[in-house]
Amino acid sequence: MSFLVTPQSLHFDAPLPLQSGASIRGYDLSYETYGELNAARDNAVLICHALNASHHVAGVYAGQDKSEGWWDNMVGPGKSVDTNRFFVIGVNNLGSCFGSTGPMHIHPDTGQVYGAGFPVVTVEDWVNAQARLLDALGIERLAAVMGGSLGGMQALGWTLQYPERVRHAVVVASAPNLTAENIAFNEVARRAIVTDPDFHGGDFYHHGVVPRRGLRIARMIGHITYLSDDVMNEKFGRQLREAVTQNASGYRFSTQDVEFQIESYLRYQGDKFSDYFDANTYLLITRALDYFDPARTFGGDLTRALARATSQFLLVSFSTDWRFAPTRSREIVKALLDNRRDVSYAEIDAPHGHDAFLLDDPRYLGVVRAYFDSIAGAAQ
Amino acid sequence: MSFLVTPQSLHFDAPLPLQSGASIRGYDLSYETYGELNAARDNAVLICHALNASHHVAGVYAGQDKSEGWWDNMVGPGKSVDTNRFFVIGVNNLGSCFGSTGPMHIHPDTGQVYGAGFPVVTVEDWVNAQARLLDALGIERLAAVMGGSLGGMQALGWTLQYPERVRHAVVVASAPNLTAENIAFNEVARRAIVTDPDFHGGDFYHHGVVPRRGLRIARMIGHITYLSDDVMNEKFGRQLREAVTQNASGYRFSTQDVEFQIESYLRYQGDKFSDYFDANTYLLITRALDYFDPARTFGGDLTRALARATSQFLLVSFSTDWRFAPTRSREIVKALLDNRRDVSYAEIDAPHGHDAFLLDDPRYLGVVRAYFDSIAGAAQ
Repeated sequence: MSFLVTPQSLHFDAPLPLQSGASIRGYDLSYETYGELNAARDNAVLICHALNASHHVAGVYAGQDKSEGWWDNMVGPGKSVDTNRFFVIGVNNLGSCFGSTGPMHIHPDTGQVYGAGFPVVTVEDWVNAQARLLDALGIERLAAVMGGSLGGMQALGWTLQYPERVRHAVVVASAPNLTAENIAFNEVARRAIVTDPDFHGGDFYHHGVVPRRGLRIARMIGHITYLSDDVMNEKFGRQLREAVTQNASGYRFSTQDVEFQIESYLRYQGDKFSDYFDANTYLLITRALDYFDPARTFGGDLTRALARATSQFLLVSFSTDWRFAPTRSREIVKALLDNRRDVSYAEIDAPHGHDAFLLDDPRYLGVVRAYFDSIAGAAQ
Repeated sequence: MSFLVTPQSLHFDAPLPLQSGASIRGYDLSYETYGELNAARDNAVLICHALNASHHVAGVYAGQDKSEGWWDNMVGPGKSVDTNRFFVIGVNNLGSCFGSTGPMHIHPDTGQVYGAGFPVVTVEDWVNAQARLLDALGIERLAAVMGGSLGGMQALGWTLQYPERVRHAVVVASAPNLTAENIAFNEVARRAIVTDPDFHGGDFYHHGVVPRRGLRIARMIGHITYLSDDVMNEKFGRQLREAVTQNASGYRFSTQDVEFQIESYLRYQGDKFSDYFDANTYLLITRALDYFDPARTFGGDLTRALARATSQFLLVSFSTDWRFAPTRSREIVKALLDNRRDVSYAEIDAPHGHDAFLLDDPRYLGVVRAYFDSIAGAAQ
């Protein structure tokens, strides 16, 4: 039995200027908090989410038996990020489809659903929106900002946009930017969505349909890249879903029926995802991933780009993560060390690929626990 | 200027029993030959093609300026597979869309287009069909059978189904079966095609449409897996197609427009492919890839599965090929050595990923040349 939490929401009237030059006003941010803000208001930890996640990081909602929080193994009383000591904040990003203002909400100026007209948001924009939430909560400086994957990019972004407001940054399974291959996978997923006839140029809400075909393909591609080749072979291998006994090979000999277990798994994941995820949100979030690149305006020089950061860092990567490979974390570590910053780095030997950052690896959880213990110790 | 070639075709009336239990009759095989069959009829080399290729291996057709043969750098007068010494045969497989009988042709029993009703064909079936072609050409025994990727699977299949008819097998960038990850990529591509509303259950020919959306996605996924992460970064990196000068980042801030060069490249490849490739063929060929697994009926024991092979082998793999990784070639090498077979193995350090097997790597072409020189020498 986990601890009880209640989602909250804050409305922001003032326009938020966006990196694109556009702005957004009259928006809401959904968030949750766990633990208590101390009197010094210096024990807050902000958790940033990745593509398919939300402000619901940990705990259970009233009436639930078990937690659906995406980092419930990481955050809670006595856990690595210990809510007995830290005041933890989970926040849903702008453009998402889990509560904060997104493409399926009403544009205050037009009274119409945003749809494809929702402004393009970037990691930098999300960090600015999160900073406004902290202002509203009366938190001047974070004990730590933490995230995995795209969440790690936000944590890194915090140290560059608000260096004075971050004591520690925990950047897990992340990268200083996407590789061409990562952009390519995002682009295929987006094309699958955009070319689905039910997408209707992003205005599918008006047509009472959902571009499910595209969302399914997008999710299937995503799932392949979240897992390692090894763990896929171990979990599924070439196992058949239902072996046919009439022939020696055991195959059904069909191009369209499910034959291998891996196909069944992927179709299931795709179907489930298309039931709840918003297609416009998928486009926005993958684009935010593509765009993140703090070194771009420094001619690609990451060392110069990270010179602004003043916080202490923990970076964690996973050996079989081919989407956000350890080499990418090491680039960040090197750039920080070039700037003589205080950096801890753990490369966890885990078989699970990119997904490892969400899983119960004792060494991983132990490294994070030790780091947060040291934060708490230093604060006392 | 390359050498002139003319595509040929042979009709086969007798039913070909297929691995699925079905059969196909009244079919045609398109093929080409290069060089001269010698008096002893023992200098024939069969070239097997991969997913997106045909019987047109090398040379130019009348009126062409340059060769569109997919292995023109490998096969020809004075080349690694020297047509001054060898009689080289390229054959298009059943179910393909480049000349041999396939889904867009007429079923002789029904008078209707096969469409989705084209029987599922396997690597084993293709090898049997190729053996019939050799019978018709009066070739009892091949000097060598050779192929890359799926073509390599056919070369391996030859040594198991017709060991007495193959002196040498050259298996390039191949594998003893697909991994779960490879099957997963194939499945996503198939789902993109099958769920395209223009697919019409495979009978799109009757509707005067082509499931272009699905084919595009399939090809984009394929292209990502043919290239290495390194070569993609080198070729495209995070380069923008057209930088915007009004903002510091140079981004256009759009979720649907092309922003990065890699997106432009993939869209172009997808569009081009959807103009000429048949959707039902894509399903059939990817399924043949999924199904190939000679060890399956030996409880997964590749050593026992390859015990039947009696030919000599050259295996070649490429260091950055993550689709058919060197470890997969080494599994074949090990199983052959366990059986005390004569095996040469070259692992080429090349940056190009799976695509390397089609490219002009001097070490690669040199290894193949030396091997074919030794075949020619031994035959003299």
